[in-house]
Amino acid sequence: MLGARTGSEVRLGQDGSRRQTAGTLLRHVHLGGVLTRAELAAKMGLNRSTIMALTAELVAAGLVREEAPRETGRAGRPSLVVRPESQRWYVLGFDVAVDRLIAARVGLGGTILDRREAVRPRAGVDLERVVEVLGWFGRQLHRTAPPDATCVGVGASYCGMIQPGDGLVRYGPDLGWVDQAFGAELGRRLGLGLPVRVGNEAHLGALAELHRGAGIGLRNLIYLHGDVGVGGGIIVGGKLLDGDGGYGSEVGHMVVNPYDGRPCLCGSAGCLEAEVGERALLDAAGRPAELFGRDAVRAVVRDARRGDQQASEALERIGDWLGIGVANLINLFNPGVVLFGGMLRDLFPGTVTQVRARIARNVLPVARERVELRVAALGDDTTLTGAADLGFSGLLADPTNPLPALGRAAAPANPAPASAQR
Amino acid sequence: MLGARTGSEVRLGQDGSRRQTAGTLLRHVHLGGVLTRAELAAKMGLNRSTIMALTAELVAAGLVREEAPRETGRAGRPSLVVRPESQRWYVLGFDVAVDRLIAARVGLGGTILDRREAVRPRAGVDLERVVEVLGWFGRQLHRTAPPDATCVGVGASYCGMIQPGDGLVRYGPDLGWVDQAFGAELGRRLGLGLPVRVGNEAHLGALAELHRGAGIGLRNLIYLHGDVGVGGGIIVGGKLLDGDGGYGSEVGHMVVNPYDGRPCLCGSAGCLEAEVGERALLDAAGRPAELFGRDAVRAVVRDARRGDQQASEALERIGDWLGIGVANLINLFNPGVVLFGGMLRDLFPGTVTQVRARIARNVLPVARERVELRVAALGDDTTLTGAADLGFSGLLADPTNPLPALGRAAAPANPAPASAQR
Repeated sequence: MLGARTGSEVRLGQDGSRRQTAGTLLRHVHLGGVLTRAELAAKMGLNRSTIMALTAELVAAGLVREEAPRETGRAGRPSLVVRPESQRWYVLGFDVAVDRLIAARVGLGGTILDRREAVRPRAGVDLERVVEVLGWFGRQLHRTAPPDATCVGVGASYCGMIQPGDGLVRYGPDLGWVDQAFGAELGRRLGLGLPVRVGNEAHLGALAELHRGAGIGLRNLIYLHGDVGVGGGIIVGGKLLDGDGGYGSEVGHMVVNPYDGRPCLCGSAGCLEAEVGERALLDAAGRPAELFGRDAVRAVVRDARRGDQQASEALERIGDWLGIGVANLINLFNPGVVLFGGMLRDLFPGTVTQVRARIARNVLPVARERVELRVAALGDDTTLTGAADLGFSGLLADPTNPLPALGRAAAPANPAPASAQR
Repeated sequence: MLGARTGSEVRLGQDGSRRQTAGTLLRHVHLGGVLTRAELAAKMGLNRSTIMALTAELVAAGLVREEAPRETGRAGRPSLVVRPESQRWYVLGFDVAVDRLIAARVGLGGTILDRREAVRPRAGVDLERVVEVLGWFGRQLHRTAPPDATCVGVGASYCGMIQPGDGLVRYGPDLGWVDQAFGAELGRRLGLGLPVRVGNEAHLGALAELHRGAGIGLRNLIYLHGDVGVGGGIIVGGKLLDGDGGYGSEVGHMVVNPYDGRPCLCGSAGCLEAEVGERALLDAAGRPAELFGRDAVRAVVRDARRGDQQASEALERIGDWLGIGVANLINLFNPGVVLFGGMLRDLFPGTVTQVRARIARNVLPVARERVELRVAALGDDTTLTGAADLGFSGLLADPTNPLPALGRAAAPANPAPASAQR
């Protein structure tokens, strides 16, 4: 990458461990934002002269810049801060949720620079249509980027189980996908010559919250992501629980109601997501079957706040099932925090009483002593941010690794698909 | 330790990393039994001359010996094998299960050299009585050890939640213990001047199976331990899932039956252990309330095999609840293997059909593609072996660390308690 632009940018040494250390520093700046050299030295356990040398190389490569902090409040010459070159290096991040498609241009450091969003119709969303819309958004975002900005990766979040390595959607019950080559197809549509790294939405949401959100510094964290169903991303000892095949943390299909459980899209019944998902809430609140989506969910929350009895009872009912799931997870994981994201963030105020009651009743006392319940700090962009971070992973693993030359002239023509909505 | 015996035994260098490497080699021999130098070199990623030097130091310290293998089948001079000095170095291992108390002298390498066992009466077993019996057994085992054998540690397994570091039983619902200083009290009774390291029975069982049993080489493993209730030890990415406080892997109190669940000793109802534990099985099989313990459980299994309808249906019922729990765990952990130990090992043949049916029905297809169900390979000694390994952890962390001189004359007098049974 660095060599593709100007001669002065090729500086970082050939030595593997130095490349890795430079990548670690860049990762701290990417995740932590503006940091002083002293903060970097403390985080990395290195002395300040090493930090200074590494920073100088990253500055020469055009990846970060050093500058005076805005205000110091102290006398004397202020210590310089290191800041990512957010406008100059970006990724394309995509988020395939059950109810919407999002694409964004995200700068180094995690700033969302530009975005496109389409409400996804509930039925008939096959691979072809999803990559058509996302491909069009992506090419548009790429074309409208400033002339001195470079795309260094592509990351995507998907509401289903993803095969590690190739972005194959093994199983996405909410969209009805089985073994669909999503990553490869989206990469082909984008035509940027970059691989598309794909992850499960709740896994990526958990990592984003761990690195930049409400989970910073935690070792053990449960992230529950409400989409139309419920996904999970569980951090055990600082690492994502992905299991043997990459399909771990699947909380949504924990059976909580073995007797008269609601049918689930997975083919079973009584799964957590069948009992607390969007449809369960809307049905319990007496909403017509034609209504769906986040606005409909938020209307129930709003109505409950305004005193609508049926809406309040619906939230309580969902809260009790959710509480059983949360209690089971706390017994299993003894986490520091349980985080509620996506739609569950909206439901949090109306369900937290029931969740706490279930924790008090069903979690062994020693495991609930210190657990906290929180909402996701990154709001509606938790999964999109996780996808963008995944897109940056190649650059952060090795900031000296030459990328394919990404001549803007080489970007493919971009005919508007009939289906895309702004 | 080494200096306390003969001058020739003090050899291992002062250098921290070399001590650690020697400890790693000793750990391989302890867990793997008899190994050739070539096998050690491969396991440790070191060259054979380094292995030879480290082995020589451990031989000089009296911790291992090298010898010709029993049979080679090949011509030429056979490669020497390294074998732990099992008779010379031992730990005391204790196992406090709900239904019995066990003490054993376990040699380096994991061989059980001598043991004592007491059937535990169901009611009225307080800390005082447990440590009285175990202390008496332990002192007896220590006194009757060969004169050239040295006790290098004490480990104990307990059927409850243990505070890491000090062996405090935070919560043991089956024995009714809350915040009992088990480790400290047992150490005082033994009077050996050695700390007693205590772990949860299912945690220790999981580690024992991972290191020496049916879980060797696995990264993700679920160990379910049937005692009177059900405990869990879950291995995630090669490490025990213990959570923020050390209380993770608590599968027994996962709510599986939220409607008409059987009451649980934890105060809740419908917990996995309430639905599949000893009492649930005996009740379902129509056994009188006065019967309890492993023999009663095994009688149900035997009767079912002989065609007793009620016993068969009891196993099926327990198998279905167990299957819900197992399916939930597979969805969460995407493990390679689920292992059944303790009483669940006895129930395995009679419940596996129901467990498999639940897996087929409730686990998402991609997460069940490769999972295997197995029984614990260490039989009834899974938890005891784990306790002994915990006792060896100090020696294995640093084989050069001097231990307190354990003069056999200093062992306290050993009056027989009225309650101990052989």
